[in-house]
Amino acid sequence: MATGVWLIGARGSVAVTSMVGALALRAGLAEPVGCVCELPQLRGPALPGLSELVFGGHDVVTTPLSKKAEALAAAGVLPGRLVTALTDELHAVEDDLRPVPEGDRQAEVAAAMEADLAAFRDRHRLDRVVVVNVASTEPAAAPHPAHDDLAALVEALAAPGAVLPPSSLAAYAAFRAGCPFVDFTPSTGARLPALDELAVRERVPYAGSDGKTGETLVKSVLAPMFAMRNLAVRTWSGVNLLGGGDGANLADPAANAAKAASKQRVLGETLGYLPQGTTRIEYVDDIGDFKTAWDLITFSGFLGTPMRMEFTWHGCDSALAAPLVLDLARITAAAHRAGRGGPLPELAFFFKDPLGAGGHSLAEQWAILCDLVRRLGTGPR
Amino acid sequence: MATGVWLIGARGSVAVTSMVGALALRAGLAEPVGCVCELPQLRGPALPGLSELVFGGHDVVTTPLSKKAEALAAAGVLPGRLVTALTDELHAVEDDLRPVPEGDRQAEVAAAMEADLAAFRDRHRLDRVVVVNVASTEPAAAPHPAHDDLAALVEALAAPGAVLPPSSLAAYAAFRAGCPFVDFTPSTGARLPALDELAVRERVPYAGSDGKTGETLVKSVLAPMFAMRNLAVRTWSGVNLLGGGDGANLADPAANAAKAASKQRVLGETLGYLPQGTTRIEYVDDIGDFKTAWDLITFSGFLGTPMRMEFTWHGCDSALAAPLVLDLARITAAAHRAGRGGPLPELAFFFKDPLGAGGHSLAEQWAILCDLVRRLGTGPR
Amino acid sequence: MATGVWLIGARGSVAVTSMVGALALRAGLAEPVGCVCELPQLRGPALPGLSELVFGGHDVVTTPLSKKAEALAAAGVLPGRLVTALTDELHAVEDDLRPVPEGDRQAEVAAAMEADLAAFRDRHRLDRVVVVNVASTEPAAAPHPAHDDLAALVEALAAPGAVLPPSSLAAYAAFRAGCPFVDFTPSTGARLPALDELAVRERVPYAGSDGKTGETLVKSVLAPMFAMRNLAVRTWSGVNLLGGGDGANLADPAANAAKAASKQRVLGETLGYLPQGTTRIEYVDDIGDFKTAWDLITFSGFLGTPMRMEFTWHGCDSALAAPLVLDLARITAAAHRAGRGGPLPELAFFFKDPLGAGGHSLAEQWAILCDLVRRLGTGPR
Amino acid sequence: MATGVWLIGARGSVAVTSMVGALALRAGLAEPVGCVCELPQLRGPALPGLSELVFGGHDVVTTPLSKKAEALAAAGVLPGRLVTALTDELHAVEDDLRPVPEGDRQAEVAAAMEADLAAFRDRHRLDRVVVVNVASTEPAAAPHPAHDDLAALVEALAAPGAVLPPSSLAAYAAFRAGCPFVDFTPSTGARLPALDELAVRERVPYAGSDGKTGETLVKSVLAPMFAMRNLAVRTWSGVNLLGGGDGANLADPAANAAKAASKQRVLGETLGYLPQGTTRIEYVDDIGDFKTAWDLITFSGFLGTPMRMEFTWHGCDSALAAPLVLDLARITAAAHRAGRGGPLPELAFFFKDPLGAGGHSLAEQWAILCDLVRRLGTGPR
Ligand SMILES: NC(=O)c1ccc[n+]([C@@H]2O[C@H](COP(=O)([O-])OP(=O)(O)OC[C@H]3O[C@@H](n4cnc5c(N)ncnc54)[C@H](O)[C@@H]3O)[C@@H](O)[C@H]2O)c1
Ligand SMILES: NC(=O)c1ccc[n+]([C@@H]2O[C@H](COP(=O)([O-])OP(=O)(O)OC[C@H]3O[C@@H](n4cnc5c(N)ncnc54)[C@H](O)[C@@H]3O)[C@@H](O)[C@H]2O)c1
Ligand SMILES: NC(=O)c1ccc[n+]([C@@H]2O[C@H](COP(=O)([O-])OP(=O)(O)OC[C@H]3O[C@@H](n4cnc5c(N)ncnc54)[C@H](O)[C@@H]3O)[C@@H](O)[C@H]2O)c1
Ligand SMILES: NC(=O)c1ccc[n+]([C@@H]2O[C@H](COP(=O)([O-])OP(=O)(O)OC[C@H]3O[C@@H](n4cnc5c(N)ncnc54)[C@H](O)[C@@H]3O)[C@@H](O)[C@H]2O)c1
Ligand code: NA
Ligand code: NA
Repeated sequence: MATGVWLIGARGSVAVTSMVGALALRAGLAEPVGCVCELPQLRGPALPGLSELVFGGHDVVTTPLSKKAEALAAAGVLPGRLVTALTDELHAVEDDLRPVPEGDRQAEVAAAMEADLAAFRDRHRLDRVVVVNVASTEPAAAPHPAHDDLAALVEALAAPGAVLPPSSLAAYAAFRAGCPFVDFTPSTGARLPALDELAVRERVPYAGSDGKTGETLVKSVLAPMFAMRNLAVRTWSGVNLLGGGDGANLADPAANAAKAASKQRVLGETLGYLPQGTTRIEYVDDIGDFKTAWDLITFSGFLGTPMRMEFTWHGCDSALAAPLVLDLARITAAAHRAGRGGPLPELAFFFKDPLGAGGHSLAEQWAILCDLVRRLGTGPR
Repeated sequence: MATGVWLIGARGSVAVTSMVGALALRAGLAEPVGCVCELPQLRGPALPGLSELVFGGHDVVTTPLSKKAEALAAAGVLPGRLVTALTDELHAVEDDLRPVPEGDRQAEVAAAMEADLAAFRDRHRLDRVVVVNVASTEPAAAPHPAHDDLAALVEALAAPGAVLPPSSLAAYAAFRAGCPFVDFTPSTGARLPALDELAVRERVPYAGSDGKTGETLVKSVLAPMFAMRNLAVRTWSGVNLLGGGDGANLADPAANAAKAASKQRVLGETLGYLPQGTTRIEYVDDIGDFKTAWDLITFSGFLGTPMRMEFTWHGCDSALAAPLVLDLARITAAAHRAGRGGPLPELAFFFKDPLGAGGHSLAEQWAILCDLVRRLGTGPR
Repeated sequence: MATGVWLIGARGSVAVTSMVGALALRAGLAEPVGCVCELPQLRGPALPGLSELVFGGHDVVTTPLSKKAEALAAAGVLPGRLVTALTDELHAVEDDLRPVPEGDRQAEVAAAMEADLAAFRDRHRLDRVVVVNVASTEPAAAPHPAHDDLAALVEALAAPGAVLPPSSLAAYAAFRAGCPFVDFTPSTGARLPALDELAVRERVPYAGSDGKTGETLVKSVLAPMFAMRNLAVRTWSGVNLLGGGDGANLADPAANAAKAASKQRVLGETLGYLPQGTTRIEYVDDIGDFKTAWDLITFSGFLGTPMRMEFTWHGCDSALAAPLVLDLARITAAAHRAGRGGPLPELAFFFKDPLGAGGHSLAEQWAILCDLVRRLGTGPR
Repeated sequence: MATGVWLIGARGSVAVTSMVGALALRAGLAEPVGCVCELPQLRGPALPGLSELVFGGHDVVTTPLSKKAEALAAAGVLPGRLVTALTDELHAVEDDLRPVPEGDRQAEVAAAMEADLAAFRDRHRLDRVVVVNVASTEPAAAPHPAHDDLAALVEALAAPGAVLPPSSLAAYAAFRAGCPFVDFTPSTGARLPALDELAVRERVPYAGSDGKTGETLVKSVLAPMFAMRNLAVRTWSGVNLLGGGDGANLADPAANAAKAASKQRVLGETLGYLPQGTTRIEYVDDIGDFKTAWDLITFSGFLGTPMRMEFTWHGCDSALAAPLVLDLARITAAAHRAGRGGPLPELAFFFKDPLGAGGHSLAEQWAILCDLVRRLGTGPR
């Protein structure tokens, strides 16, 4: 199953780490550490193979892929030897990257995007193309009446002016081109009634939002632990120090608020009450691509005895995110092949702010994911 | 269902915290924080109510319960106001405590224990009595041929000399008296073929071993997180600083080794490989009943990028253990009523070193526990 | 040397802990742990003895001392047994507490305060009275032209309206009454040119500002360590989670900003450059009087190698502050007796935001303090 | 002042990092971060310049310098670009490395070492050569009567058999060749009465022992902080996880014990009492050259209130040690020129286990060091 992976934000850290990694795995230069789909529970013929993935994408900047890859190697995100070894492969991918189309009317922009997707599919004779949003997090989008109804949306897009934020326009273009859409960011993406209507109509699946890679991942196992033991969490307060491109963007309070809220949601929903405390995000240039998060949890046990736990997480966000991007592309492609359209809430395992009303316990999400992949393996092609 | 809880080590920290807590809950002086059986998923008529529990037990020391309870209050384990409010109730329990019987032959000792259990049951007209071992951890027991066969064991116990360690003798006496047995300690307890034979024959259930209350509890959710994400854990190294009676006992290298091994087992079984590093236990008198554990985890992600996590757990062991003792007594009593005999591997949720070959993921253990309790609620009485 | 200690904010946590502690020390019920003046380097006849201190003060609330002391005991700040044992002594102190005087003109208020101070001195035949501000932190004061000149200030105070913030009015009253003034808070206090003029004219010493008890104390030894080793600190980012009365007050952004700035100053002045990062203060009710601060320090060593240190401080602010209040009262009284007037920059050891231009290294501040006390011991009486 | 630096263990991590760093500084490719002698307080004409240092040394292994340097770069200890840029310079140093001489009698071995030192001095026309021991830590040396008397020692060395451990034999050879000796390791080195006698007679200075680079450095500022504030430290317990060549060596219990003892000494001497707890060293291969140390400190404040601090130190030992090796060589050379012979207790700032009876407070040690360097700058040449 030759599968295209079209990355919105294709020259960013997550995108380039994903591409270098997939190329390295194909070339036998690395082990699939961090690739969930390579675990015994998920591996199988239902999913496209890692070597069947073909990359392309949009970005607003023009930094050459090889330069970005070198920067990531210098920062310790990638081994430099891989970048050297994969120079040719990266140059080949470069040919499949396109600038984000521009235009006065968003309908034109979307049409140009669709054309880029179709050309990519044809050029490489792909069975399907999955669009994955790994662009910079947007500020929260302004509401617009056309968001709620597909017909109204089509009409509004044809007029001048911005109706959809970029992430949602990308989803719109993807759906119109018959491509599944995955939102790895906290941006709006496909989460508008009009876009859901389109995805369902076109029978293309979509997944999101906001890849779960660090502190929230830890929360999604620790919060259930406190809940299962009936311990009363009093305070859960955390700070995330991060640098890199994404960090600078999140220092923008508007983007920050969206992200912080999705980080705290897991607690309320898992515990059944919201402990005191907040999650703060702070930009520290020197931290670079390695994030340090510290969380303090105070809780009381039997007869009120006060206790505490704290943890420090020192993770490389791009290295944690990249294999999940590959996983998501593969599973979403398989879901598309199996005839699924509309939201894929079964992928909550991967997201901080998952679609649907399921729980936030990682273990439950894992069971649901395993079940989905098993069914995809036996379902209709 | 009037249910006796006979505590081996009844004057120790865990035992006294359990009893004060149960009395406080019955008197409406406290909330059932930490009591797993009070969660919506488990609560129900299948289990004896908290107010149906009646306490008694053996100990080798004679410290009055009220004095021990005051010491626990001074140490911050219990609220002092509860100890004051429950003076009368504690005095009543005092009447049901007995010294550990002595004798030249272990058969005699066991017979005297059985008599204590029967008298307790009759005195309070109890439906059944669950024996729970919360005595000091023993050194690893010397092997003996009679451990493997019940007939040989009965014969050996009738001769002079020590064939069984105290925890196993207590299990033997419990089974002969028709009482379920729970081992909250890492001692040998019921884990001998001859005792399993007896439990099965007498149709009494047993559960164990070693209550999971601190660092291992955290490990049982973090290790599956790394496994589910296919991240390669390189090092997992921890240190446990603990004081209190149990701490002093564990400073004994023989007891220490048993405990440290059961603490590391969860990693190997969950990850499928054993990372570098060890778990050390250190006795620090000043730490008292509050344990501080620190763990460092180094792991590598996609393309080998090195990352790290560390956590500090500052928990009051007795306050974490006590509600679990009540949970275990209630569930084991219900299993007995439902006709279960022999090992109860479904209680792995509560133990560091569970019976049976199940996994060490807390979430899986939780699902299994919920399922057991549901079945107990609908099964034969 | 009978020495009065007049506490502004006398019913607050720091004040009450100071008084209970001094009474307990006098009664032989406690050891002088935390009292810097009881170290061999400072102990001596130059300073009034701990048992020569007599307490009084102002507050805007009327909570009885004994009630506040009980609340502190319940929160683990004080041992309950001391509160019980010192009931009579605390009642005696209650007689020396006064409401903060009110009036349309600040000159009247100040005169009433002076009268309270004089009456206290006479009532107990005190050699002198030291006024110590431990009231809630004020928002940053609005500038006023009269702050710069004593004559203008006297005139402005005689007119209606608020010219001085409460802390500065207290300093004004103290100086007019011939009393030394210590500011343990980050409020303005005596730090106005007009007040300095008054203190110098009246030959009364003053000291401040903002007691150094937690994270900043640690910074004042760690930052010099990095400096002495010529290591390049890249990031120093911290978060302070605190509850209690002071915490609630500091949640007010205006007060917060003053405190956060004084916390970061130590870094710039010690290192010679300001690393990235900030110090945040967050109010978490459940934390109570025990503050948890977490700091991350990233630094680079030889040839740029990146390294990191993090620390967690879990301290009881009132228990750290109270003995310093006693130390400051004793040393300031001795300085007054020795004829010192105006600022006492030699007390920088005690403060986050010290008077004068001295360094922020704790060890240097300690040497200067020892030297001052030695000179006070041999100087003119 | 052309100054030779003769490294015992010249192919080890610390040695190679020192040499690469000095060459990089000379070539203007790096900043002197971590070099204490480049701070304004110490910089000056009293000390040989960094570019006046010339390197040679002994080792028992033959790994080429460039290969070791590449390994250090791969491990993140050195920037790879420096190793590439300094290829020629490293090859030049290679010519000045010698195998450790061998022989039946230690007198012969020492004579061969002296010849190596003299040849090195002559070859490069050096004003003097400082011998610095950075070889693997030895097990504690067996006592021998000849250790106490120089005449006896000379006689014993002339007979077959091992009288001195290798580090002491190196010191003996250095002193006989008129070379100052610095021991950066916890081995015996010059710390024998007979060797002291020799150093004094030959008027050559020596310094040691055991470079203070990580957890002990932090202890040397935190312990004085607690002492200056009269806070009662109850527990100080730490664990050091380290890999690399030195780590493997320290996993040997005999070497480990020497190191752990020197790590705990600072506490007892600074506080005046020894808190509970221990310092453990654990070898974890995956940690590599980056050490992680975690320390828990529990202390009580005023009226006994219990508090706690913990810190994690994540440092690259070789990158911390290397600039100190350069500092020590420069200062010891200057002391030699100034006519100092025998021990240099003024260099305690650099060592975990310093010579002489001075205090362990880093700030005091710093003042003493500054004073020494100032005097060297104005003393006789
Ligand atoms: N790394 C993680 O662990 C993680 C986890 C969850 C979410 N995310 C999200 O993934 C996204 C990417 O993170 P990153 O670290 O790679 O950031 P990055 O800044 O390195 O890359 C973002 C890229 O998006 C491009 N871009 C910006 N606007 C665009 C647009 N309108 N259309 C196309 N491209 C556009 C930028 O030019 C840049 O190349 C962010 O939104 C981040 O919040 C990352
Ligand atoms: N608290 C926890 O979180 C936790 C977790 C897992 C296991 N455990 C285990 O629970 C046990 C109890 O812990 P604790 O903190 O209460 O210890 P403790 O020392 O306070 O109490 C143990 C009691 O057992 C008594 N005892 C000793 N030998 C006995 C014997 N042969 N028969 C009867 N009584 C005997 C002692 O006199 C003492 O009163 C320990 O084995 C401990 O390892 C505790
Ligand atoms: N505890 C520490 O470690 C520490 C360190 C540095 C500074 N401080 C400062 O010490 C002060 C006291 O801290 P706390 O924890 O005792 O606070 P608290 O809130 O417990 O007590 C403050 C008291 O001041 C009183 N008050 C408020 N305004 C007043 C006024 N105008 N005149 C007289 N009294 C007034 C309040 O009624 C209260 O009783 C705060 O400003 C705090 O920032 C404390
Ligand atoms: N790096 C630090 O922060 C630090 C701090 C204090 C002390 N030290 C000490 O410095 C020493 C060096 O540390 P490292 O990390 O470079 O270790 P390393 O293992 O990398 O290097 C030691 C070198 O010494 C050589 N050697 C062994 N025995 C020898 C002998 N008899 N004569 C000559 N050479 C010999 C080895 O072959 C090796 O090349 C160790 O003793 C260590 O304990 C290091
Ligand atoms: Na920590
Ligand atoms: Na930490």
